[in-house]
Amino acid sequence: MTNELLSLLEIPAIDEKARSEAKRRVDSLTKPLGSLGRLEDLGVALAGMTGRVTPTLERKVIFTVAGDHGVVREGVSAFPQEVTAQMVLNFLRGGAAINVLARAASAEVLVVDAGVAADLPKADGLIRVKLKAGTENMAQGPAMSPGEAQGIVEEGFRLFKRIHAARAIDVVGLGEMGIGNTTASAALAAALLNVEASLVSGRGTGLTDGQLSKKIQVIDQALKLNRPDSKDPMDCLAKVGGFEIGCLAGITLAAASARVPVVMDGFISTVAAFLAYRISPAVKPFLIAAHRSVEPGHSLLLNALELRPLLELQMRLGEGTGAALAFQILEASVRILSEMATFSEAQVSEGTP
Amino acid sequence: MTNELLSLLEIPAIDEKARSEAKRRVDSLTKPLGSLGRLEDLGVALAGMTGRVTPTLERKVIFTVAGDHGVVREGVSAFPQEVTAQMVLNFLRGGAAINVLARAASAEVLVVDAGVAADLPKADGLIRVKLKAGTENMAQGPAMSPGEAQGIVEEGFRLFKRIHAARAIDVVGLGEMGIGNTTASAALAAALLNVEASLVSGRGTGLTDGQLSKKIQVIDQALKLNRPDSKDPMDCLAKVGGFEIGCLAGITLAAASARVPVVMDGFISTVAAFLAYRISPAVKPFLIAAHRSVEPGHSLLLNALELRPLLELQMRLGEGTGAALAFQILEASVRILSEMATFSEAQVSEGTP
Repeated sequence: MTNELLSLLEIPAIDEKARSEAKRRVDSLTKPLGSLGRLEDLGVALAGMTGRVTPTLERKVIFTVAGDHGVVREGVSAFPQEVTAQMVLNFLRGGAAINVLARAASAEVLVVDAGVAADLPKADGLIRVKLKAGTENMAQGPAMSPGEAQGIVEEGFRLFKRIHAARAIDVVGLGEMGIGNTTASAALAAALLNVEASLVSGRGTGLTDGQLSKKIQVIDQALKLNRPDSKDPMDCLAKVGGFEIGCLAGITLAAASARVPVVMDGFISTVAAFLAYRISPAVKPFLIAAHRSVEPGHSLLLNALELRPLLELQMRLGEGTGAALAFQILEASVRILSEMATFSEAQVSEGTP
Repeated sequence: MTNELLSLLEIPAIDEKARSEAKRRVDSLTKPLGSLGRLEDLGVALAGMTGRVTPTLERKVIFTVAGDHGVVREGVSAFPQEVTAQMVLNFLRGGAAINVLARAASAEVLVVDAGVAADLPKADGLIRVKLKAGTENMAQGPAMSPGEAQGIVEEGFRLFKRIHAARAIDVVGLGEMGIGNTTASAALAAALLNVEASLVSGRGTGLTDGQLSKKIQVIDQALKLNRPDSKDPMDCLAKVGGFEIGCLAGITLAAASARVPVVMDGFISTVAAFLAYRISPAVKPFLIAAHRSVEPGHSLLLNALELRPLLELQMRLGEGTGAALAFQILEASVRILSEMATFSEAQVSEGTP
């Protein structure tokens, strides 16, 4: 990160006072102690993140960030590259899964072009932070230059700050779209975790056994050729990452610095959040795992972050769809804190523990 | 069931045509095949239950049915019996967890007195189907007479029919309140499944180890004394059940007969749905498991029904709280079916599997 941004990057600690007051409040509500399980823990955690004993989640925003990947030339995806741009147009028209699930959760979708390999029309609602029309083929050389890696994280950081300054965001969901991006994510996860590619590689949008072997081989080749330094997150991003991933990492850093809870979606957005964590470990208490994706690398990252997802619905779509579903559980958890009656308010006798 | 009700009780089969059309539709939407996981399966299942390819869940109703239990005289609950009536008043004022979670899911809560041991004031919104002010102490004799067991199931059946006739219900959630009702539910589950009491008994609202042993001993005593016939569900209900459980079983039977999906909540409401299933196995395809409760008997019943819950959030509150949370996932699943664009509508290239 540049000095300018590093100086901005002061991520606060959890507000222990708000957290413990919320805990006291949840224990005074008309229900047996602890009987709402993880819903109670979640509400209390959100109080600690936001610094508010009864947080409200009025403005829920999903950043669905798109980028293309040069590595698709190696035949690692079941879909052609043009689908990235086609899906961006689908997002803008409101016909994709993320639009439907965000509407159901009363959340906004902000569609971001962080490196799509097409000239997208200037459309209402399309945010452009593009430095380049997709990454280079990491099987032949670095995916991007160190300057581009730095640049895209900063773009994400500034993007969040700008939107948040205009109207405060209460919770942010990380979403993405990019044909080939489970390949880049698997390479980046392997680099950051220092593990074998085969442990973090999955079928993405639907590879056969043969295609999956090929994908692992391509990732191995990219890692051998580029030698990302697992101790240097920005080096890993540059060599085997993607523009949407870097942008989402920047959004994560900016959100945490503003005490805004960050809801990760599936494998790719969790790689982005993990990258942010490796840039600044102080983001960790602001991360929430929405669901457990079918992609095998996802569970490894969640373990590394010591997070248990709220949902396990065998989803593997991305776009922010799991985050949008999880928003409804977050909303329920904070409404419990603010709307339920206490034992004394409701004149209900307490139990004898 | 009386002849009158048995003649009404024609539970239809799943609509395989609607189901397979919904499956075709979900496979044509702009996402990789199967990538929304259980959300897709759920939408398709709801199409089969309702007979509509794109079901809508506009009127979502939770029946929160209350009843008292004579067995509390044996000291099996951490809370005093008066809490049942106090919580009914809390439901009517909107301050309980179920009110909050139902509001969050845009669902109605219908509060039903099916046997509370108190004269509840005539209040707007309180539905009375009470035959008696609570069951007898099953540790000393049968919880209710065969006629009362029959009567309360019929009350539940007619209640659903009446509300549904006035304005169609699209999905129903089963909720309950009753101090002592995990004890009755454990006894009833043990009787219906023909298993040891210790396998289905848990800490309810928060028992200590000593209190849990006592509870198991009381259930054992009730089973030995009353000898419920595990092959006769109505005999089991009469001897060791509860009025809220019988009423919910009747609601389940009526809902399935009207093609209305039934969302079970935790242990107690699942015992009620299981009872309905034992009365008429045709209800099974209309049952949806909302969440997995901490109560150990819950998992046994879910296994017996071959159902996997949508949520695992360590909840154990009842009232219908898990069902209300699950309503939001159901809503998301049907909105995917009706609101997402197809590949051809959105001009997105399809993958090559």
